Amino acid sequence: MLDATSSYNPMDRRIPVDDRTGQRIVPETARRGDRVSGTRYGNRPTMKDVAARAGVGLKTVSRVVNGEPGVTPDTERRVQEAIEALGFRRNDSARVLRKGRTASIGLVLEDLADPFYGPLSRAVEEVARAHGALLINGSSAEDPEREQELVLALCARRVDGLVVIPAGGDHRYLEPELRAGVATVFVDRPAGRIDADVVLSDSFGGARDGVAHLIAHGHRRIGFIGDMPRIHTAAERLRGYRAAMEDAGIPVERSWMSLGVTDPQRVRRAAEEMLSGPAPVTAIFAGNNRVTVTVVRVLAEHDRPVALVGFDDFELADLLKPGVTVVAQDAAALGRTAAERLFRQLDGTLVTPERIELPTRLITRGSGELPPAD
Amino acid sequence: MLDATSSYNPMDRRIPVDDRTGQRIVPETARRGDRVSGTRYGNRPTMKDVAARAGVGLKTVSRVVNGEPGVTPDTERRVQEAIEALGFRRNDSARVLRKGRTASIGLVLEDLADPFYGPLSRAVEEVARAHGALLINGSSAEDPEREQELVLALCARRVDGLVVIPAGGDHRYLEPELRAGVATVFVDRPAGRIDADVVLSDSFGGARDGVAHLIAHGHRRIGFIGDMPRIHTAAERLRGYRAAMEDAGIPVERSWMSLGVTDPQRVRRAAEEMLSGPAPVTAIFAGNNRVTVTVVRVLAEHDRPVALVGFDDFELADLLKPGVTVVAQDAAALGRTAAERLFRQLDGTLVTPERIELPTRLITRGSGELPPAD
Repeated sequence: MLDATSSYNPMDRRIPVDDRTGQRIVPETARRGDRVSGTRYGNRPTMKDVAARAGVGLKTVSRVVNGEPGVTPDTERRVQEAIEALGFRRNDSARVLRKGRTASIGLVLEDLADPFYGPLSRAVEEVARAHGALLINGSSAEDPEREQELVLALCARRVDGLVVIPAGGDHRYLEPELRAGVATVFVDRPAGRIDADVVLSDSFGGARDGVAHLIAHGHRRIGFIGDMPRIHTAAERLRGYRAAMEDAGIPVERSWMSLGVTDPQRVRRAAEEMLSGPAPVTAIFAGNNRVTVTVVRVLAEHDRPVALVGFDDFELADLLKPGVTVVAQDAAALGRTAAERLFRQLDGTLVTPERIELPTRLITRGSGELPPAD
Repeated sequence: MLDATSSYNPMDRRIPVDDRTGQRIVPETARRGDRVSGTRYGNRPTMKDVAARAGVGLKTVSRVVNGEPGVTPDTERRVQEAIEALGFRRNDSARVLRKGRTASIGLVLEDLADPFYGPLSRAVEEVARAHGALLINGSSAEDPEREQELVLALCARRVDGLVVIPAGGDHRYLEPELRAGVATVFVDRPAGRIDADVVLSDSFGGARDGVAHLIAHGHRRIGFIGDMPRIHTAAERLRGYRAAMEDAGIPVERSWMSLGVTDPQRVRRAAEEMLSGPAPVTAIFAGNNRVTVTVVRVLAEHDRPVALVGFDDFELADLLKPGVTVVAQDAAALGRTAAERLFRQLDGTLVTPERIELPTRLITRGSGELPPAD
């Protein structure tokens, strides 16, 4: 693990990597400039702190806290003194998990109908199941107010933890819940204005690799069609596009970039505009799977071949003609990693929020290797 | 609405149709032979019964029950007498919806990663939202025990109603919840051994139409690959296949039918077996979208063209070569219809369980119109 005081710069590609998983490990720092260092969940003392102060092992503290046998009176007194000195309060969520009531965790998605969230949800559910917990889902429909309403409704229904794909950019409303011991991991997009665990794909690096791939196949006039710029992943992928173009010394024209909602009408119009006029783009980078499937439709009707690389893999991408080259993120790994961290928070073995970035993978299938048509 | 004492015979195609929606309307009768007639939810008297007995309107009963002003003392006494005589108990779920607490409904799915459930879930969520209620999802992973655990966990968390895609065949465990006033609608598959609202697609008719389409294009050796036979939709689609073959006077060989889990390995093996040997099938009917996408892969590697019709539409089916002919069900309409019925139960305007069958639609795109290769 990194020294928690080191600063995280997303432009810095020398991010330390976990040897076992290949995941990048970076401490999460609050967005918008307010740097934090080594903050613990809810700023509360943990069992680990109690164990350190009392000079005993975690298991011993756990025995004392849960009234289990096997601790000498002297040790028990030392632990109790440490508990009082630190103001330690048992994490009720973790306790609930042990007490036999059916535990449950909540998953707040963005859109129930986006196939990207299918494997992610299922992975979270599998981890929950392995821990004997039920998974309860809800969707924000990309509405920050609805996200907040749903998160608080799940907390009111006493979920033990939350995996959140955030729609909003300010999660301070969660602070009382975090202090009350609700475990929380953000996934796909970071939390805003609070210090929380987050598991992301490397949107910036993935997009940069995908656009560089198009440039390597001779393209210079490359369009970017993405989701709304307030969405973290959309902004990061646009940044990756710009970085790849800058690396190749290609000035980007404003008309090559289109960000907005990903409904088929808007995306179709954006693609058709880029493909018309005296100097049309010869390649398109699509910012997510919703964009890609619409661009595939537009290109199927287009008279000249246009290269395409899409962010996100999707079902049947390999069976289209040409097969669609994609920057694949591992949606199941995102969900699994987030859920595993959630249960490590609940069992008290994870105490410092981190930012984990999973690598993406370029899968070449034909559409991204087409040369420029002119 | 049908006379509730008429019997429902799924072989009878002269099912009455709602003029406005085109939906077939049939009263739900309990499966496994125990006929019911006009049963009300939980067999409890409703506000309508109170209103009829007191000789007043529903709104007046509602005012008395909720302690609202605008009722004369004489009328109030008449209503109170009717309430006592009938043993009417206010529906707490409906009351909760009116009292300002955030209402919520639960949706129990089968598999979070199956794209068929995406539009269904989103439609349920949209209806819930229009009623000011949150939607909470969970998935049974096709495990009856897990379905029961999840349903009861949602009830314990005080959802006001449940939309259930059942995994199990015995839902008597729900009876106490129904009596307690939890609104419930089953969707995609019927409830087992209880009398409950159910909204289905016409799996039997859809499969029969799809197989008849293949027969009309000259096929006789037609394979059927479907889900596990204990799943209602799988059994109904197999029945539709058999009916179409029988209608055409084609004896079905055992080796042409393969039912089981829909994972790619099992489906691939089944398809390859049907396509090999001295008298291979010349066409395949795929029982759901999970089966279809695997069969598409197998056929893409096959040396001779084989016709294919799949149950369920799926994204990009039209862009494959050839386009995939499907029997489309309207997943969003299933979800919307079920959720609307749920809220009609909650507001007290729907009191008799029914079985609603939505029609399917054959969409021809090329794969189902290929002639036999031999």
